[in-house]
Amino acid sequence: MTTGVRRRMGVEERRQQLIGVALELFSRRSPDEVSIDEIASAAGISRPLVYHYFPGKLSLYEAALQRASDDLAGRFVEPHEGPLGARLLRVMRRYFDFVDEHGPGFSALMRGGPAVGSSTTNALVDSVRQAAYVQILSHLGVTNPPARLELVVRSWISLAESTALIWLDGRRIPREELESQLVNDFAALAAVSAAYDEEMAALLRGIVKDEPADGPFALLAGRLIALAS
Amino acid sequence: MTTGVRRRMGVEERRQQLIGVALELFSRRSPDEVSIDEIASAAGISRPLVYHYFPGKLSLYEAALQRASDDLAGRFVEPHEGPLGARLLRVMRRYFDFVDEHGPGFSALMRGGPAVGSSTTNALVDSVRQAAYVQILSHLGVTNPPARLELVVRSWISLAESTALIWLDGRRIPREELESQLVNDFAALAAVSAAYDEEMAALLRGIVKDEPADGPFALLAGRLIALAS
Repeated sequence: MTTGVRRRMGVEERRQQLIGVALELFSRRSPDEVSIDEIASAAGISRPLVYHYFPGKLSLYEAALQRASDDLAGRFVEPHEGPLGARLLRVMRRYFDFVDEHGPGFSALMRGGPAVGSSTTNALVDSVRQAAYVQILSHLGVTNPPARLELVVRSWISLAESTALIWLDGRRIPREELESQLVNDFAALAAVSAAYDEEMAALLRGIVKDEPADGPFALLAGRLIALAS
Repeated sequence: MTTGVRRRMGVEERRQQLIGVALELFSRRSPDEVSIDEIASAAGISRPLVYHYFPGKLSLYEAALQRASDDLAGRFVEPHEGPLGARLLRVMRRYFDFVDEHGPGFSALMRGGPAVGSSTTNALVDSVRQAAYVQILSHLGVTNPPARLELVVRSWISLAESTALIWLDGRRIPREELESQLVNDFAALAAVSAAYDEEMAALLRGIVKDEPADGPFALLAGRLIALAS
């Protein structure tokens, strides 16, 4: 087994290896700059053999994106324990870890473009957004969200995406600051909605009553009051 | 001139007419559902004549999108007079007018997809975002924005987009509420940033000091303080 002779891989094992190699390349550079030749070379196999497993670059890209989507959706899962603000902050840390690891590929995908956009890739992006939405509702303990809560959660998810994309473009603000800020942004958007709708206000009161006085929600409220006075 | 005989149009006039007809069709339904035959029929000309002016559906779509982008960017222009919150609210009204008029086409474009995504369409979407960004900075009186202000403005623009898209999906919340809410969201995101950064706090203080006590910024601050207490 250590003779240096390359072990022959099974079909599924080889497919998984190729997906891993492709994902790494698609993450580090814009996917339209990555060639099949490069993927073959990084995987240590011939170009025709790549085509034996995947009909073309798009199908390999989609398989890599599927793996990345599963990975990211998995990072949204957080135990239902402790203050909500602290839970969301831990998820934000794992989200920025992911964005950091897949920077150029994440930017290319989310900014759209002919090389990366297809109905399959769009569906994968939407499935990750939906996973985030479902997780947040479960932590809020809401099964039948009113339209205004759905709007706050979904528009905040899009805010998190755009914040990550802007961060990637030059990394001029420390990511730790943005992770905390996004937790506070969630509270702020919910508070704006609650300021104009009694149902949202009641919901928000129920959520924040269990938050600790030194948690991100309470800290933000204190700082905003200080700013306003 | 009123004999009922169709007047012959010049080349540029015909192109502009076709763009107008196409834009109306592309606005009311998802662009991939609109055929060249339908555009020809709505314009009262033959299918081959459409191809005489535009090589294909994509080029006609791009021309229609160019006109819509110019239209939308024009709606961002607002006199530099009166309270900032009131200015932004007027722009939000015109923004939702536009979204309302172009609903299905706006959704299809912004949600991406193979039928509507190209480097040209992406560049047009980006140019509209950039126009919004430039307008906001000019109203804030800032020529050299710090990274955190750029983040607040750009991420808020993306929040306005996602809010409009969610509104279009069922229109379950009155648009007037969302227009006001987005003005408040801008203040809230700026306040969160200011709560953690002294430069942003100084900038925000300079901005809100001239806002009237019954303007959207002051009203929001009051309501948030009431919520928090």
